This record gives sequence, C-alpha cells and structure tokens, in this order.
Amino acid sequence: MLKLYHWWSSTCSRRVRIGLAAKELEWESVYVNLRTFENLEPWYVKLNPNGVVPTLDHDGRIVIESNFILEYLDDVWPDVPLRPEDPYERARMRIWMDKFEHVLHRNVNVISFIKQGRIERYKKLSEKERQAAIDRQPTEEKRALLARRLRDGISEEDMAFAEERLAEVLDEMEGTLKDRPWLNGERMSLADISIAPFIERFEANRLSRLVDWNTRPAVGAWWARMQASPAYQTAYSFTDPTPERAYQLSNRPSWNHRHR
Amino acid sequence: MLKLYHWWSSTCSRRVRIGLAAKELEWESVYVNLRTFENLEPWYVKLNPNGVVPTLDHDGRIVIESNFILEYLDDVWPDVPLRPEDPYERARMRIWMDKFEHVLHRNVNVISFIKQGRIERYKKLSEKERQAAIDRQPTEEKRALLARRLRDGISEEDMAFAEERLAEVLDEMEGTLKDRPWLNGERMSLADISIAPFIERFEANRLSRLVDWNTRPAVGAWWARMQASPAYQTAYSFTDPTPERAYQLSNRPSWNHRHR
Repeated sequence: MLKLYHWWSSTCSRRVRIGLAAKELEWESVYVNLRTFENLEPWYVKLNPNGVVPTLDHDGRIVIESNFILEYLDDVWPDVPLRPEDPYERARMRIWMDKFEHVLHRNVNVISFIKQGRIERYKKLSEKERQAAIDRQPTEEKRALLARRLRDGISEEDMAFAEERLAEVLDEMEGTLKDRPWLNGERMSLADISIAPFIERFEANRLSRLVDWNTRPAVGAWWARMQASPAYQTAYSFTDPTPERAYQLSNRPSWNHRHR
Repeated sequence: MLKLYHWWSSTCSRRVRIGLAAKELEWESVYVNLRTFENLEPWYVKLNPNGVVPTLDHDGRIVIESNFILEYLDDVWPDVPLRPEDPYERARMRIWMDKFEHVLHRNVNVISFIKQGRIERYKKLSEKERQAAIDRQPTEEKRALLARRLRDGISEEDMAFAEERLAEVLDEMEGTLKDRPWLNGERMSLADISIAPFIERFEANRLSRLVDWNTRPAVGAWWARMQASPAYQTAYSFTDPTPERAYQLSNRPSWNHRHR
C-alpha cells in the first residue's frame, strides 16, 4: 500500500502529488499539519528525521526527499514514464532537479520567511519561547539557521539577492523552453514536476518580477501547459481541512482520506 | 569518445575516476589545472558554468556534476552495474549522494578553506587583487561566499560546527555499515564511490577525530575494503603532472594523455 504523509499547501508535497497523479497511482492521504508543527512531533520525526513533508510509506518502506520519491515512483512503476529515455536528458533532468532543490528552494525559503510574516510572529514571542522554537528544530543546521535569522534578520539586500538567484534559474529555463515544450523534451518529466509548485508559489507570493511572462514567454507558455495538465489539477485539488479546528489538534495524524 | 576534464587531486574528479575504473571504460584524460585557475578560464567555464572539475564530454555531449556523471555512466553502460536493483535501495543511494554533496561537501569546504591556507594567501594580496579574485568567481553565489569569507573570516566556532556536521554523516554511515559491507548492500554502489574521496581527504587533512576508526569500526572496515578495490587504486594513480611548470602555464588544457 502507498501512503503519503503530506500537507495540502506544502510545495514539496505538491511535487509528489503531481507525480502520483501523472502515474495514476492509488494512495492513502495522511495530512501532517504544519500549522500546529505536527511535522516536529516525535512520531513524525521518527519517519522523517528532517521533520519535513512529504514522506512516502510504501508497504512499510519509508522514502523521504520529494525529488527522490519522484524517481522512486518511476523506478517502481515504469509505466507512464516520467523520465526521458535518453541518458543525456536524464542527466540534465537530475541537474535541473538538484538546482531546483538546492539553489531555488533554498533562496525561496529566504523570501518565504519574510512573505509569510514569520519574522514578525517570532518577534512577538518571549525570549524563552523563541529559544524553544529554535530548540524544537530537528537538526543542528536548522537550529543554527533559525537562530541566525532571528538574531540578524533578513535584510532588503538578502531578499534582493535571493530573488536574483530565482530570476537566474528562470532565465535558464527560458533558454531551454524556447526550443521544446517541456524541460527534457516532448514529454513532461520529473524536472517539470519538481519546479511547478514553486512557480505557483511565486504567483501566490506576488513576486511580480518573476512571474511577468512577457519577459519570459517560453516559461509562461510552459506554465500554462503545466496548469492545464490533469496531474497538476489533481495535485492542487487538496485543500485546507478544517482551519478552525487546526489550532486545537495536537499530535496524531488527523485527516485521513483515500484518494483514487 | 569519452573525455574527462579533471584534476589529479580534486575530490569530485576522483569520484568520477573511481566510477570509470569500476566500469572498466576507456577514456581520454584532460587535466584542468586548479593551481593556475584554469578552471576559471573562459574556454572551461563555457563547458562547465560553475567553473569546477570534473566535466565529462561523451561524443560532444557535455555532462557536469560528478554525482550525475556517475549516474549517467551507469545509464549508458549498464554492465558492471553500480546502482542497486531494488528501487528502495536506489532511493537510499540517491539520498546518500545528495547528503554527501550538499551537507558533507559544503561543510568540508569550510574546513578546507582554512586547512589549505587560503585565508592566509588572500591576506597577502592587495585590496585590488582580492577584489579581482572575487570578481573572477563564475557565479554570483560563489562571489558572495568568497566575499563574506574574506570579510568575516572563518572562526574556530565555524570550524567546529562544520566538523560536527561531518561527524554526523559518519555516524549515520556507521549505523548502516554495521549490517552490510557497502552502503547499499552486498555490492559497491555509487554512494560508496561518491563519499570515498572525502574520507581520503579527512585523512590527508589529519581530521583525527573523524578518522579514528576505533570509534567507527564499521566505517573503518568499509574504508579498508574501498582502498583495496582496483577501481579506487586506479583512480588514485593519477599524480601531479609537472609541478615546477605549473605556475608558468596560462590558458589551455595542458596535459593530455590517454588512460587505458
């Protein structure tokens, strides 16, 4: 059985949901409420030591890291292939996915930290509560990152630098998509799936310089194709469960439902 | 034809050379002299926009990023497979390789910057020369990183933090290697190949806390197996070409020789 621990609005959860839908797999949905920090509860950190969603449970075998969950799905169910046949394009696909995770995602986090008002929320906490929030992070790198951000803040310059890195990735995509409909050729690949939720996030966060498709028309056309795909639409049909109850819940997977 | 742009002592070059040797492939060797910054010359940055070695040229198709070059070799030449058959182990292999690159390698760089005396060498330069060294970096992220390091230095605390992250990865390896000879089971995989040159680097840099195999006997036994393998030995048979000439050379690939 295939079970996905995820959250409706998480970028990396959306990645995996697009992949599952594209491959027309049946799976059980278990929401992990990021709003109540359920992802940092001991039962979940035991599954996913980084305390992030999503996590895949396939007959008891636990797979983490959304990009590698996607490759795993394609390894186990090679029908409806989402990786190009050509080894050279496969290498390019992996380089894209690595860049989306380690360049783009990292810089998106800088911007999201501000855009989601997290700095403001932390400022309202007492010193002791702030320290508790740092201590609750599941890894030392995350503790150090949060401590540094709360100490130094994120400057306008940091924000501009991060946005510039995102623009560079989009420029590179524009260069590739001028000549082909999808990043690895004629068919949607895991690379397209891997980046799609970030483009949606740029639009949701109104990063207007990044989503002005007049300046990057090939990415704009690709984005329209992606949004029109049934897999994307299925992945984005998941919604906030019962927002008013969200703050009362504590430490168990709370909303389980089966999804075709 | 298979051609590898690499440098004898580069960690990521060594990775790929172990893979090439394990697969018993013939290839042409082109050294890119890191000592004379040949990797930052325009002709090389055109091949590899990050200005790092190695780069693979396979009949004119250029593949970068050592971990993905390794997967590429296994995709093109599936004989002597270096990836496990089981998709679950493949996912674990990719998660190891990602961690070796993005957690371990990043933290190794902090330590190497000090251990290789780079800070001291930069201190001897004039302000203008230092700025030129920053400007010469091929990407904005690298320029920002070098500028920050030259401005703030690397503290004892930074060094200790980085070494602690390396120790965590080794602890995780110890947990896995207690039950199996190689990271993904009974056979050497790309994950073993991906980490091996870093273990050698820890020994070369005398990071004694990390390479005391009494504290991590399973990693120690794995390391002995790795060093005894013909592929490792072939990869490490490359040597510094003509050190006394190295500083006179400027901007062309300088030492080309064929390797078996």
